[in-house]
Amino acid sequence: MTKVDLNCDLGESFGNYKIGNDDAIIPLITSANIACGFHAGDENVMAQTVKLAKENGVAIGAHPGFNDLQGFGRRNLDMSPHEIYNMVVYQIGALKAFCDIQNVKMNHVKPHGALYQMGARDPKIAQAIAQAVKDVDSKIVLVGLSHSILIDEAKKLGLKTASEVFADRRYEKDGQLVSRKKEGAVIEDTDEAIAQVVRMVTENKVTAISGEDIDISADTICVHGDGAHALEFVKQIRKRLSEVNVDIVKIGG
Amino acid sequence: MTKVDLNCDLGESFGNYKIGNDDAIIPLITSANIACGFHAGDENVMAQTVKLAKENGVAIGAHPGFNDLQGFGRRNLDMSPHEIYNMVVYQIGALKAFCDIQNVKMNHVKPHGALYQMGARDPKIAQAIAQAVKDVDSKIVLVGLSHSILIDEAKKLGLKTASEVFADRRYEKDGQLVSRKKEGAVIEDTDEAIAQVVRMVTENKVTAISGEDIDISADTICVHGDGAHALEFVKQIRKRLSEVNVDIVKIGG
Amino acid sequence: MTKVDLNCDLGESFGNYKIGNDDAIIPLITSANIACGFHAGDENVMAQTVKLAKENGVAIGAHPGFNDLQGFGRRNLDMSPHEIYNMVVYQIGALKAFCDIQNVKMNHVKPHGALYQMGARDPKIAQAIAQAVKDVDSKIVLVGLSHSILIDEAKKLGLKTASEVFADRRYEKDGQLVSRKKEGAVIEDTDEAIAQVVRMVTENKVTAISGEDIDISADTICVHGDGAHALEFVKQIRKRLSEVNVDIVKIGG
Amino acid sequence: MTKVDLNCDLGESFGNYKIGNDDAIIPLITSANIACGFHAGDENVMAQTVKLAKENGVAIGAHPGFNDLQGFGRRNLDMSPHEIYNMVVYQIGALKAFCDIQNVKMNHVKPHGALYQMGARDPKIAQAIAQAVKDVDSKIVLVGLSHSILIDEAKKLGLKTASEVFADRRYEKDGQLVSRKKEGAVIEDTDEAIAQVVRMVTENKVTAISGEDIDISADTICVHGDGAHALEFVKQIRKRLSEVNVDIVKIGG
Repeated sequence: MTKVDLNCDLGESFGNYKIGNDDAIIPLITSANIACGFHAGDENVMAQTVKLAKENGVAIGAHPGFNDLQGFGRRNLDMSPHEIYNMVVYQIGALKAFCDIQNVKMNHVKPHGALYQMGARDPKIAQAIAQAVKDVDSKIVLVGLSHSILIDEAKKLGLKTASEVFADRRYEKDGQLVSRKKEGAVIEDTDEAIAQVVRMVTENKVTAISGEDIDISADTICVHGDGAHALEFVKQIRKRLSEVNVDIVKIGG
Repeated sequence: MTKVDLNCDLGESFGNYKIGNDDAIIPLITSANIACGFHAGDENVMAQTVKLAKENGVAIGAHPGFNDLQGFGRRNLDMSPHEIYNMVVYQIGALKAFCDIQNVKMNHVKPHGALYQMGARDPKIAQAIAQAVKDVDSKIVLVGLSHSILIDEAKKLGLKTASEVFADRRYEKDGQLVSRKKEGAVIEDTDEAIAQVVRMVTENKVTAISGEDIDISADTICVHGDGAHALEFVKQIRKRLSEVNVDIVKIGG
Repeated sequence: MTKVDLNCDLGESFGNYKIGNDDAIIPLITSANIACGFHAGDENVMAQTVKLAKENGVAIGAHPGFNDLQGFGRRNLDMSPHEIYNMVVYQIGALKAFCDIQNVKMNHVKPHGALYQMGARDPKIAQAIAQAVKDVDSKIVLVGLSHSILIDEAKKLGLKTASEVFADRRYEKDGQLVSRKKEGAVIEDTDEAIAQVVRMVTENKVTAISGEDIDISADTICVHGDGAHALEFVKQIRKRLSEVNVDIVKIGG
Repeated sequence: MTKVDLNCDLGESFGNYKIGNDDAIIPLITSANIACGFHAGDENVMAQTVKLAKENGVAIGAHPGFNDLQGFGRRNLDMSPHEIYNMVVYQIGALKAFCDIQNVKMNHVKPHGALYQMGARDPKIAQAIAQAVKDVDSKIVLVGLSHSILIDEAKKLGLKTASEVFADRRYEKDGQLVSRKKEGAVIEDTDEAIAQVVRMVTENKVTAISGEDIDISADTICVHGDGAHALEFVKQIRKRLSEVNVDIVKIGG
């Protein structure tokens, strides 16, 4: 039977600043990517979010990003692969301590924002990220953009990987996401987005913005919890996947 | 045979900013307290300092402090015990990842600066620190001011402890260090400082600033590496301890 | 005719993090205290908030705080008066540039959170804050807790001051606010809170938590914009003040 | 008579971290670029450095950079022109407060590191920087790489500019500096470097790394104060310039 994971970025609050809707989204997902205090999150939020994920039986992943709270980790920062390696080790290590204390395993790592995008395109950055994950714990699954360089490099190092797809984003012919700066980057129509997801999961195909079908792997679907619409959208994805007999299970589950 | 550890704060550089004299001091000590990126240090410095300590056979400890780089962790910050617990877990976890990758164990934890002083006096803060250490790894030794509340609370939790003494600082009657804001806080005369160290280690006694002898435990001596004088001072301590048949070995060694 | 100012902390968002309800509260107030990028706010939020205040004819003030984003400036930090002086100068200067560009004057300065509380009690900190304000622009009004040391020190330096009162907080016999850690610190009943405000403004009296009436000066009332209840509360304060013929005008207006 | 300014980056220390050799270099220069607390410096260092510059009769400039202390502002950060505008306003404003307090004028602004390089190449970033300078004070001189887009855009806005040259760096045919990542970027031979400086100042020509002579404007020469060699180099530059009758005077002086 076909199966897929639903992942969401959680634990992005910081100090007095609240963001996201963690309590509402968590029953609807199977994997949580928890911010590690660099682009978002702090040690108190991390402790609490690990607890929340554990209580809901949701798989936990580290969500390392650039040390740029003001930019929420979404701005490219020109760091060397060696620096990126250490930055990822540090963040995984910090979150892992909270997992260990609460007796839950860290199941996966998914780079955040600009780090995710840069790792999808640049082999040296991809290697640095993958090597960091492997060195901390070679059983951790690395989550990356489907058909990206990050997935390639992780596989070369012998890591387990999970290819991620986006329900509401359009793809370039080469498998990269259409940049949000371009027209048509986001699928506004819910039915169309859900049809795209179902096809990616069941047929491993998606229609690129240029019109041709391209191959895609869909081990995990990225969803968001902000706002009533987002939650409704996740519920519809779950419903449709269930109707076509796709199991929603955590990565590696 | 009597034995004692010599510990020093290392890895306090940050980005482009260099501080300390790590390469020069490390052959003279048995334990390194490595900053964890909050009050000092960063992920690159941490990776490098763990490597340096490993190569020199020096025991590694985490040196967590307040998230106050500008104040170098020396300014009291009013945090709740729960927040301090999470802050310590985070920092130990981050450093532990670098230790794990390099296959060296984390031998001890020593709180830094204002956190060290607050933990020496406040039972709730002391408990938070000790519990964090225990929860991450109950075999880690907690280093604290000799006869302080931090040592008491760590023992109550069943942790191994190492009582720390200062060669060049004077003590209050109650065993606390004389505040640097007071006259006479620091022993300027080298011979006097060394005599104080030797007596603390061999007799477990020190003369308080008020004149009476007080009990003291001396499992580890705090030394500094900044400047030619500091290095010379450490060499003299080593020489004198050797002359009175005190072994210099790492904590628990 | 009696008059009073209504002030509110604005511009506390940071990067991707939104906090407060600036657009909704601004038509109801006469003075805005704008965060300066240390405890909250950033340069983009500052530019935008100065614009918002200008468009609404609301007086602008700098709202400097400790450099502690995680603690939102609410945690005491042990800084020297000299450091506090420079910290306040820096923040006022940064905000003043945005005011100058938009051709609006900086009318007042109100310290934030822990800095406000520490300045209300400690003469050296109060002097440092007041001197910083005076040195940047001696025409700026310093806002502080009514009958506090901050107001005293500002007056000694010849600064104009505005004594601030809190509608929903109870007072100690000595005029300090009852700590939020104590029972009864906050007045839960709206009618009681409004009655307290009106009496403070019209009679310059308030009943302390210990039962006796104490003197109070009420040049400005601190209000909040978070949540529907808060806005409703401000509207009721405005209505009641109007009914007793109190003019709501900005500080110095 | 030909004249030129000698500028140096000062005030780059941060908290407990000391960097540079400000006291030694300041008698040898005519303009100080003072870090503003984002990529380096803090409010205490700023206050002290403004004082030092004033006492030595050295012209003061703001040296704004990216908010990246760990990377010392040398790493490209992908910010929008609007964000860069606000970031520059904030930093100039903060430093200006310290200048105003000490009754010295802010004479110039020189962007730092990655911001300097990005502004030299990207018209939108250049415009944002120049507009920020103009809006804060249209009499401030903008310092930028000779023949760069930053200088062009500043002139278009009617700002006074100072074209900067580097004694020990080689130039590309288009006037950009040869990247430090390339071989031959730095001139190691002192005599050669000094000959290049003298020719740039007296003939407005430099030989590019590709061999041909290109035009260059040399209003100000960038020098460094770190290390005995650097100071000696500056002294030699001063000596040689004096021998060829070039006056060393501050920008606009």
